[in-house]
Order: sequence, then structure tokens, then C-alpha cells
Amino acid sequence: MPKRVKAAVMTAPGKIEIQEFPYPKLESGAMMMKVEMSGICGTDKHTYKGENVQYAGTASERKTPFPIIPGHENVGVVAEITEEAKKGLEFYGEELKEGDRIVMCPDVICGKCWYCRQIHGYPWCENVKGYGNAFSSKEPPSLFGGWAEYIYIRPDVFVYKVPEGIPKEVAVLAEPFAVTFALDSAIHSSAGNGFCGDTVVVQGVGPLGLCCLIKARILGAGDIIAIDLSDFRLKMAEEFSADYILNAKKTEKDKRIDYIRELTDGRGADVVIGCTGVPDSFTEGLEMLRRGGAYIELGNFVDTGTININVHKHVCAKNARIFGVTNHPFTKYGATLKLFLKYGEQLPFKKIVTHRYKIQEAETALKKSMDEDTMKVVIEP
Amino acid sequence: MPKRVKAAVMTAPGKIEIQEFPYPKLESGAMMMKVEMSGICGTDKHTYKGENVQYAGTASERKTPFPIIPGHENVGVVAEITEEAKKGLEFYGEELKEGDRIVMCPDVICGKCWYCRQIHGYPWCENVKGYGNAFSSKEPPSLFGGWAEYIYIRPDVFVYKVPEGIPKEVAVLAEPFAVTFALDSAIHSSAGNGFCGDTVVVQGVGPLGLCCLIKARILGAGDIIAIDLSDFRLKMAEEFSADYILNAKKTEKDKRIDYIRELTDGRGADVVIGCTGVPDSFTEGLEMLRRGGAYIELGNFVDTGTININVHKHVCAKNARIFGVTNHPFTKYGATLKLFLKYGEQLPFKKIVTHRYKIQEAETALKKSMDEDTMKVVIEP
Amino acid sequence: MPKRVKAAVMTAPGKIEIQEFPYPKLESGAMMMKVEMSGICGTDKHTYKGENVQYAGTASERKTPFPIIPGHENVGVVAEITEEAKKGLEFYGEELKEGDRIVMCPDVICGKCWYCRQIHGYPWCENVKGYGNAFSSKEPPSLFGGWAEYIYIRPDVFVYKVPEGIPKEVAVLAEPFAVTFALDSAIHSSAGNGFCGDTVVVQGVGPLGLCCLIKARILGAGDIIAIDLSDFRLKMAEEFSADYILNAKKTEKDKRIDYIRELTDGRGADVVIGCTGVPDSFTEGLEMLRRGGAYIELGNFVDTGTININVHKHVCAKNARIFGVTNHPFTKYGATLKLFLKYGEQLPFKKIVTHRYKIQEAETALKKSMDEDTMKVVIEP
Amino acid sequence: MPKRVKAAVMTAPGKIEIQEFPYPKLESGAMMMKVEMSGICGTDKHTYKGENVQYAGTASERKTPFPIIPGHENVGVVAEITEEAKKGLEFYGEELKEGDRIVMCPDVICGKCWYCRQIHGYPWCENVKGYGNAFSSKEPPSLFGGWAEYIYIRPDVFVYKVPEGIPKEVAVLAEPFAVTFALDSAIHSSAGNGFCGDTVVVQGVGPLGLCCLIKARILGAGDIIAIDLSDFRLKMAEEFSADYILNAKKTEKDKRIDYIRELTDGRGADVVIGCTGVPDSFTEGLEMLRRGGAYIELGNFVDTGTININVHKHVCAKNARIFGVTNHPFTKYGATLKLFLKYGEQLPFKKIVTHRYKIQEAETALKKSMDEDTMKVVIEP
Repeated sequence: MPKRVKAAVMTAPGKIEIQEFPYPKLESGAMMMKVEMSGICGTDKHTYKGENVQYAGTASERKTPFPIIPGHENVGVVAEITEEAKKGLEFYGEELKEGDRIVMCPDVICGKCWYCRQIHGYPWCENVKGYGNAFSSKEPPSLFGGWAEYIYIRPDVFVYKVPEGIPKEVAVLAEPFAVTFALDSAIHSSAGNGFCGDTVVVQGVGPLGLCCLIKARILGAGDIIAIDLSDFRLKMAEEFSADYILNAKKTEKDKRIDYIRELTDGRGADVVIGCTGVPDSFTEGLEMLRRGGAYIELGNFVDTGTININVHKHVCAKNARIFGVTNHPFTKYGATLKLFLKYGEQLPFKKIVTHRYKIQEAETALKKSMDEDTMKVVIEP
Repeated sequence: MPKRVKAAVMTAPGKIEIQEFPYPKLESGAMMMKVEMSGICGTDKHTYKGENVQYAGTASERKTPFPIIPGHENVGVVAEITEEAKKGLEFYGEELKEGDRIVMCPDVICGKCWYCRQIHGYPWCENVKGYGNAFSSKEPPSLFGGWAEYIYIRPDVFVYKVPEGIPKEVAVLAEPFAVTFALDSAIHSSAGNGFCGDTVVVQGVGPLGLCCLIKARILGAGDIIAIDLSDFRLKMAEEFSADYILNAKKTEKDKRIDYIRELTDGRGADVVIGCTGVPDSFTEGLEMLRRGGAYIELGNFVDTGTININVHKHVCAKNARIFGVTNHPFTKYGATLKLFLKYGEQLPFKKIVTHRYKIQEAETALKKSMDEDTMKVVIEP
Repeated sequence: MPKRVKAAVMTAPGKIEIQEFPYPKLESGAMMMKVEMSGICGTDKHTYKGENVQYAGTASERKTPFPIIPGHENVGVVAEITEEAKKGLEFYGEELKEGDRIVMCPDVICGKCWYCRQIHGYPWCENVKGYGNAFSSKEPPSLFGGWAEYIYIRPDVFVYKVPEGIPKEVAVLAEPFAVTFALDSAIHSSAGNGFCGDTVVVQGVGPLGLCCLIKARILGAGDIIAIDLSDFRLKMAEEFSADYILNAKKTEKDKRIDYIRELTDGRGADVVIGCTGVPDSFTEGLEMLRRGGAYIELGNFVDTGTININVHKHVCAKNARIFGVTNHPFTKYGATLKLFLKYGEQLPFKKIVTHRYKIQEAETALKKSMDEDTMKVVIEP
Repeated sequence: MPKRVKAAVMTAPGKIEIQEFPYPKLESGAMMMKVEMSGICGTDKHTYKGENVQYAGTASERKTPFPIIPGHENVGVVAEITEEAKKGLEFYGEELKEGDRIVMCPDVICGKCWYCRQIHGYPWCENVKGYGNAFSSKEPPSLFGGWAEYIYIRPDVFVYKVPEGIPKEVAVLAEPFAVTFALDSAIHSSAGNGFCGDTVVVQGVGPLGLCCLIKARILGAGDIIAIDLSDFRLKMAEEFSADYILNAKKTEKDKRIDYIRELTDGRGADVVIGCTGVPDSFTEGLEMLRRGGAYIELGNFVDTGTININVHKHVCAKNARIFGVTNHPFTKYGATLKLFLKYGEQLPFKKIVTHRYKIQEAETALKKSMDEDTMKVVIEP
């Protein structure tokens, strides 16, 4: 093992520098993961821009303990592992050994608060701490983020062994893809019976929106319409089975709504999935919905201010079913990896990572991830 | 049978007069119902005030074909019945004869549009016509509303025989109570598993809110908190098993939210039911909700303008599940009547009708129904 | 139009002869469909063998009014259509004209019995009459089955326009594929949360089992294991995305159960779908299930006698969820046709029809359909 | 604290003797509970009779490590508590102090196996150990059952504080009542939409059946029919809101089925709940069910051999939904206690405990609990 570990550290909003940390000694039950790839997520961009995740996310996302090592979408291999961790760390009880490829749930939960006790699988824990943003790198063992050569895996982290046949550039998508499991139940809540064959609109096909689009297809969607500002992303949505695409830069709001209505005999879509992060998409999406349709909001993770809504028109009269979603279920990494294996032939998961950067290029990478001609940008140490 | 039938006619917004109509001849499959009681509903008030039901309700509610005979919450007895109607009119196939007490679904559906074909039970029919507001009394047989001595029941109306043991002042509640069946599935959509024992807030305990409160109790709610502006209505909520009451006139919004949080260890309620008709209740109710809780909006049936919402805070970060509800399932009159029978001992349904007026007092009755010291006001010919 | 219409008539169990009928005059609202293809179903085989569909199916299936024209999986084109039918016959309200390709729901429901009124979409109608087995061909207009040049479509039949791009040999599968919509809700009833990524066993991959296997894949299954007696059918299951196959002729029951347990870390499958028609498969399948898994029984459509079950072991201790399924939802032809369009690239629906016969070869076709080296056998007039 | 603790010990099937154990020293995180009352459950009777719980229950129930102290339905008060336990032991995070009344979940789970990780709330844990039957009293601290003056509560037990206003004879029912939460989702699985107003049959109204009957009423059942061999129990079912009762000793199977059909216009019940423990009730109950109805089997907890079933008739053609249930959700003690508070006025929970015995009378108590003129029999030290 090396004596020093290199990492990109965000010392304050807008400031990233490369630092070295001592390779730590493992406590009982812990392990070290050699990072193969770490994705850049919208949360990282918000933290960098100093934006406010006031009501969502973890307590630490709400008040970042700078300096931090970002990176919570991580894939890597077991570098060093304690005896206790070999049998105790893998979520499903599989034994781990050095060299095994793994992904990890970044959210560490207490297991004892009301949400941990009553709500299945979701890290709505009142004491949750997130790798990549909740730990100050000033406090040893410091290595709690993926933009680094190594990550220190505490005994209370959920770790998942990656099956043979899933390359790192697909495994790195496990965390954002796990978010899409919110759709599984929500889409069945539209009035009617069942989802299979339904018309689905995805507003915003950045990495999360694209994962949702893919999931809708895996769950048996009928027509899928993707909307985005970027032709690059819309083209990619088509590669991942979108039936129709709509560039929101080149269309008026009313025309977009009309377009959806025309595709659905005037009724509106059965399901609309909001992944833009722009609050105005919310009411636009509700107007695209048929009576009794389901709207799933996953994009407004950061506080971007208020909008106007007509409760009568958008909610009551529409008989809308609306689902807000943050976080992702730690119980669904297994299913996520299984889907990567089973649906990888028809859906080219490998293409989702479009840009790769070294640790020392972390700031460039972060800025690049805000461009429209990217999908998932990753750090590859 | 009489030769002339007396009815209260709304000739324009704000104008009600008493008219007489010829007792009509029945077409094949039709029947005449002698009205015993007809409830006054929020929709009637909106129509009287000339308010806009722009996006909800039936096409006819959206553009009222004055003059009309109001009244769509009707109970009565079979006065005259054609041979075909005896075997064909009762929803569940029961045979009808003169003297039988019945209630009716006011919504007449086409049975052939997409909504009729695909969505179970709900009258989201694209061609729906509602008794009490969709038929001009200028066109014979004119008698399509309950504020009259008789109602003409067309062959395409759903009629339900009232079991022995349910008095008219309880049967008259069948229509608004059937609305509450939207709760049955919605309340199970809060994250967690199941509803039984959950904490429920009911915002607004006028007739519809009170029916929702009662239904929450029948479905196994834990603590129920009723909020209203009227002490009269809050007292009644207590009689119907509310555990806590809160007069919104005497409290600030923030205090009300704090109150709910205090009752729930700081988390917020599992389920909030919005029945005020005031759009600001929507965001207030969402702030009363715990993460992953369910908000059910049944009150903003009429367009009362826009409000501000923070999609991040109120929907996404809250992981809220929101259900808009209009109309009621015509399949649930049977269950409604069964509940009146089974739960009538512990829940004093008879007390819900607080004021009764004659047909000629219809305008007085309508105005009275807007007062805070009323619950259900009815016309009793 | 021709003056005479040729049809294969089953005059008694085991007896099929070719007859000619007069081309009928259409009543108002009716139409004539020129048959392009008519599938042979398990029910047809049972009827031919004189087997007992005592408790399932329609009243007519329970007591067949010989002579009949079999054939209820039908695709064809509009040959002649009344004015009323042009606007009134298509289920979703689309206009029909001569030459349009259509499929039809063979079950004609009353729309008025308790099941029609309360249960959505399923033809559990107490007065249901099924094309292909409920009408004696002795009574004009006689043409109520698909093994004929033409079918007489009554005004109360549900007819569905087939979208461009679906060939007849795929459209002919609409009826059996619609049966699989029972899976959509049932598979979500296994304890756990959601189906996506689950391990699914399909017992018996004849035409219905293969449709179920395909549907499981469309709904996001993880590993799928197909079991059958026929290598021909198992090979086809693999072409349709089965991950593992097991020939029940070449294995012992215990080995089969062990095999499933080995694939699932000793737990058993999440979902088992029973499509063999052999009652012993039921307990075998339950033993393949994990605790809290879902078993869906669609195969024992005909009475094949009793078997032993240990209620403690197979149901209670297993915490099994078991779903019996007959019939198919008439509301799901639209979704079925949509899935044919959307998933046809990755799943070669066209290959499912393996054998085609002329009307005059109907008996040969029926016998052939009992062979192991067939999938769907059809009559193609 | 005393130096010696008295307990009833089952040393082998059929053998109970009174022993004394040293009052133990507490490990960190543990506490001692002074037993107020401990219920006698069917499992205790099976263990005493030496019956086989081969496939259900915990590993320890399957092979009892005699000698044991029985008793897993326990209520008591905190007698002595370690500092760590004060803040860490209560399931919902409430602080505990000496004198607090508590109930406990007898099942101690590992939290790490597949079932613990994937299935919410249910103790299907592969390593579960149950108080009252999984711990040999030969191994200190010995006191792992409720038929004793004190119980040793390990740090990994789930303990629940009992709210003010619930007396011990009601709190003692928390464990069997929590079992009924299996109904909450299962009853909604009958085809149709929703449960409220449904007709429910409860086969067997011993303590568990009575709890199910009560729960059905709390969840909004329509007519409830109770069937049992004991007039004593049937009378009690009536006190708890059964609408109809049927003594199975005095009726033939066919007559019972006919009786249910007559009450339901010939269709059969919407929901049947099996709590007899007699396997033949299973098929009888399925015959009482309407098409698409739900059957919930909670009674055959012990292996009582096989019965005949006709898969075609009882499952497939019936379109039955069948749910096997063992164990109970540890997440639902809170809701259970809330229901005791909210529904105690209309449902006389206090009367369910019909017989009380001292520790030294444990064997008499156990035998008495097999009599027909008892409901819940308890040990009250």
C-alpha cells in the first residue's frame, strides 16, 4: 500500500485543490477501497456553486463541513480488508476479498431513528452521514470521498460486490440508477390499472433523467418522450429508446404541452418524470399529464425558489398523483446491478460515461459536467 | 301522480325562483323519484356565486346551462317506474318497485370514452352530464335536479336501493361520503407500510371534510386533528372522533404547523387531507406532513387563483405524495350505504344534517349553508 | 362479398367438419371481419378432447352448445361495416373503415352484473358469452368463431384497431398476451419492494407460458428460468430471453427445486408462474418459491383432478402469495399492441407462430398444436 | 431486587416444573423487566404437545432447546436498567426509566441476512431467536421467557413503551394483535377496488382469529361472519362486532358454504381469514370466496398433514388471491398500541383475557387454554 493518498479537496465553494493524506490504519470491520471511478453528480455542482440544499439531502449536504473530498458515486476494488469486514461488510452477506470489485452506498444510516425503523430501505435517517460531503477531510482518516486514490470504508457502510461482466464505467452508475427505483411504485399510482404500455414524458435527460428514461423502458413503458435543452443529450435519449424528442430551447411551453397532447389523443401523458432541476418544469409537467396521471419530481434537489401553482387546476381538477423523490434505496443496489447485466445488450449503458478526468483535473471535470455536451463525467484516478 | 311539479330554479347566478313543471311521461327504462331530501353542496354555492369551476367537474359545471334545477345529493322513493326500469335501473341488479327508497349517482356517463373504458369507476367521462347542473329546465322533461318534488330518472342513471335501517337524513349523505373513497388507496401511498394507526390532519371540517374525517376513523386512523375556522364545526368534528381540534382563526400558520409537529415527535403527520377550498392550505398542509407522507387535496374544486410553492421544499425534499381528487366513484355507493349501517352506532351520522328547508326556501337555505354554524343543509320538499 | 362462407365446425368432441354458411345481413352496429389468422388455444384442445372446464371460463365453455365454429384468437380486416359501427365499435373510440386491420376481444359481457360493475376490466361477467365456443352455428348468423373466412361482429363486441407496423402473425397473439396483464399487479405482491430484478421461474413455456416469460422480461425481471418437457419450446424460451432452461423430462422434481435454490443463494425464486396445466406443478412451484414470494397460476384452466397440499408448509410457513388467473382484461388490448410495437425489436414476436393451416386442415392443425415441437399453431383461411 | 427469580420451566414436551434462577447481573445495554402478564399462545400448546412446527416459525421453534421458560406475549415494567439501555433500547427512541410499562417483540433478529435486509419489518430473519422458546434456561442468564417473575432483556431486543391509558390486560395482546397487520395489505389485494365495506369471513375465533376479526372491523369491513366450534367464542365474536355467527359443530361444510353465499347474493365473501389451524378449513374457505376474493391463512402454524386441493377449481378458476402469514411485524407495535387507545371504547379489548393463573399454575393454565370456554389465558406472576 502507498504511504500517501492523493485526493481532490473542495476547501470552500468554488475552490478545489489537490492534497495528499496519509494512508490510514484500519479499525476493526473497516476496509480500504481503491477507487476505479467516481461520478460527478448534481449535488457536487451545487456544493461547488455554494447553492442551498436546504430541505433535502442529508444534514451534511445542508451544511457542508469544508474541506471535503467530494465523490459519492464510487466503484473500486478491495485494496485492504480486515478479517471482520470480509464476512460482515457486504450488504447481502457475500464474502469479500482483496481485488473484488465493489460499489458502495454513500449514505451511512443510524438504523435507530424513526425513519430507519419504519420506512423501508430509504436513507431518510435523521442522523445520516453521506460520503463525499459529510466528513471534513481535516479529521483522520480523512478519505471519505471518491475523488481520491482510496476510500476508507467504515464498518457501518453498505458495500455491494459487483458481479462478473459489469465494467467499471457501468458499475459507477449504480448510485444514480438506484434512485430510479422510486419509479417502480410511483408509476403504478396513476389511476388506471398498471403502467405497462403507458406514455411517459421525461423532462430533462441529463444523467438522472436518462437513468429514469432507461428505467421506464425496462419497466415496460409504451411511448417515451424526452425533453431537454441539449441536442447532444436528446440524441443520446434516442439511443436509449426514447420514441420522441423535444428541444425545449427551440419550442415554446405551450407548444410542448400541445405536442404531448397530440401524441395522446388530446389527453396528456400517463406519467411525467421531472428531472430538470428547474422549478417551472413542475407546472409545465402537470399540464402535460392526463387526468389521474402520475408526476414524479426528482430534479429540484436544490432550493431554486418559488413558482406559481394553481392548486385547483394543476392538482385537484387534474386528479394528479405527485411524488417527490430524494435519495435512493440502499436495498436496490443488488437489483440495479442485475439490471445492468440483463438489459445491457439492448441498452448501451457503457456510453453513459462520456468524459473521464484524472484527480488533478477535478475542477476541470466539475466545470465540464455543467456543459450540455456531456452525460456522466467521472474522475478516474 | 300530481299534474304539476314544484321546483326551485336557478335562472342565473344569484337568482333562484320557484317554478312549476308538468309531471312528465316516462320513456322506456325511466322512472320518477319522489324527492325526500336533497343536500346543498359547495358546487351549488359556487354556481350561485358565479364562480369558475374551470378545470374540474363536468363540462356542464364548467358552463352552466341556466335555468337549472340544482340538487345532486338526492334521496327519495320510487314514485312511478316503467317495466324495463324495474329490472334494469338498479346499479347492482336489484329489482325496484314503487315505494323503495333510493339514492342516485348524479353523474351520467357515456361508457365509451377513453376514461370510461380505462379508469375504473370514476366519472372522468369526457361526455359526463350531471344532474343538478347539466340540464336546462327549459327542455322537457325538465326535472333533472333535487330541489324539486320529483326527479326524472333517465335509463342511463345509476340508482341504488337503500337498505332498511338507513334514514333519509343519513342516505342523503351517500354522494359526498362516496367521495371519501379516494382516501382508501391514497392513504396507503405514504411511505411506510400501511395506514392503520397513522396520524391524520383534516384541514377544513365542513361537510366534505367531516366525511373524510369519519372515513379516516373507519379506515383505522390513529390520532386525528381537525382544523377549521368554525368552533361549531370543530365541536362536531370532536363528536365524530377527532382527537385534537385547532381553530385557524385563533392561530397563526406557523403555530399550527408547530402544533402538528409537537404531536408527532417533530416529524409531521403521516396524512393530511385538504378540504378547505382555500389554496393556501395546500402548502400549509405540505409543511405539516412528515417526509414521505401523503397529502390528499379534495377542496379546491373551484378556481381560486394561484399560490406560491417551493417545489424543492414542499415536494421533492419532503418526498411528498400528493393526490388531487374530484368526483366520486359510482361503484362505491354500495359500500357507502354498508358503512352507514355498520358504523352508525359509534358515529352519529344522523347529526350531520343540521338544517332543513322547504323548496320555496331554497335561496335562504343556500345562503344559510355558507354560515359557519351549519354542517349539511338540505332541501326537504 | 361472397354468398357463402366456409368454416371449420366442431360438431361434437372429437369431430370437426368443413361447412358453408350464408354470408349474413348486418344488423345496425354490426360489422363483418375477414379473418386473416385465428390461433388455436388450449381451450380448443380441451373442447375437442371433451375435457371439463367446470369451474373456470365462461358458462358456454363449461357447456359447449355444439355445433360451434372454434377460434377466439382472431385478427382480420374490416370487410363490411354499418354506419353505426364505424363510430361505435372500436374500443377506444377510433373510427373504423373497410380494410382496417383489427383484433377482437372474444368475450362479450353484459356490463350490468355485479362483476361487470365492480371489477375493472375482467370479463368475470355472470352472463359472458365467448366467441369461438358460446354460440351454436346452427343459429344464424352462425359466424361466431375464427376458423372461418368471416366473423360476424355483433354491436356489443370490443374491437381494437391494429396500429401500422404490426403484422398479422404478431397481432394474432393479442388475446393470449393480454392474459399476461394479470402479472403486472401480482408480481408486485411478493413481500419485498418491487419486482424489478427479481428471479422468475416459468413452469411450462407453451404459448401462454412463453407470453408470460416475455412479459416478465418487459416488466424488468432479473434472472428468468424456463421449465418445460419440450426442448423445442425451451430453445424458443432462450430466444425470448430466458437465462436458464430446465427440461422436466430429464430431471427429478427434487433436482428441479434444488436447481432453483442454488440459483438463489438457497432462498428460492421471488416469483413463480405456473403455465403447465398439470396440477402437480402447483406444489412444486410453491417449493421453488422463497418466503414471501408470489406464485401465479394460469395453467390449470381445465379440471384435472385434485392433488395433495400441505397448507402449513406450502402456504402458511412459506408466507406465500398465490394468484389464480383465468381470462384476460379487455382493457389491455391497447397496451398489448403498444408493447408489440415497442419491444418487437429485441423480442422476435414473429417467430411465435410456428405452424399455419388452412380451414380445411383445421383438425390436423388442432392435433398438431398438441405436439411438443410447436409453439402457436394458427388457422390462416 | 430479589436474589432468586421464580419461573415455570418446560423441561420436555408435556413436562412443566417450577424452578428458581439467580437474579442476573446486567451486561451493558441490557435491562430487567418485571413481568406483569404473559399470554399463552398456540405455539406454547404445540411445544407442550410435542407437535411439529417444521417449516414455519423460528429455527428454535422448529427444534426446541429444552429446558425453556415459555412465554413470548409479555407485558411488564422496567425493573432495572443500564445507562446504555435507557437511551438505546426503546424501538422508537424514547427514553426508558424504572417503572415504565413496556411490551417487547419476542423475536430477536440478526439485521444482516437477506430477509432482514430486503423485507421490511418481518422477522423472517435466517438467524432469528425467539424469547419463550429459543433459549435454554440452563444457560445463564436463563430468564428468556415470560412465565417468570422477571425477564432478562438483551441489548438487541425491540422494546416498546406502553402509553398511558392501556392496562396490562390489553397491552399483553400487543404481540398477537401485531400479527393482524398482515391483513392491512392482503385485504386490498382482492380484485375490485379497496376493502371498505367488504364481506369478511373469519374461520376460527380463538385469540388470533378474534384479533383478526377486530382488525377487519377497524379497517372498515362491511359484514363480518365468525365461524367456530365454541359458542363461548362465537358469543365473544359478537361482542366484538361480528354480524353473523356460525357454529361449525352444528353445521355441515356445504351448509356453511351455502350460508356465506346466501349472505352475498350467491357470490361468496370478498375476504376469508383462516385462523382454525385445521388444514381442511383452507379449501372450505376458498369455496366461500367470490371470484377474485382474498384468502388469508394464519392458522396452520404447525404441520398437521396434507389435504386435497383442486388447483383448477380452488385457485385458478376462482381467481383467488391467497396469502400465507406467519410471524408479525416488529414495526407495528406502535400502531397496535395506538389502536388499543383509539378503538378501546367501541371494542372491549379488556374482556379478551378471560383466565389468569399464577406461575406455579402454569401447567393448569396451559391445559385450560385448550378449552373452548376460554379466550386468552395468561400467567400473572
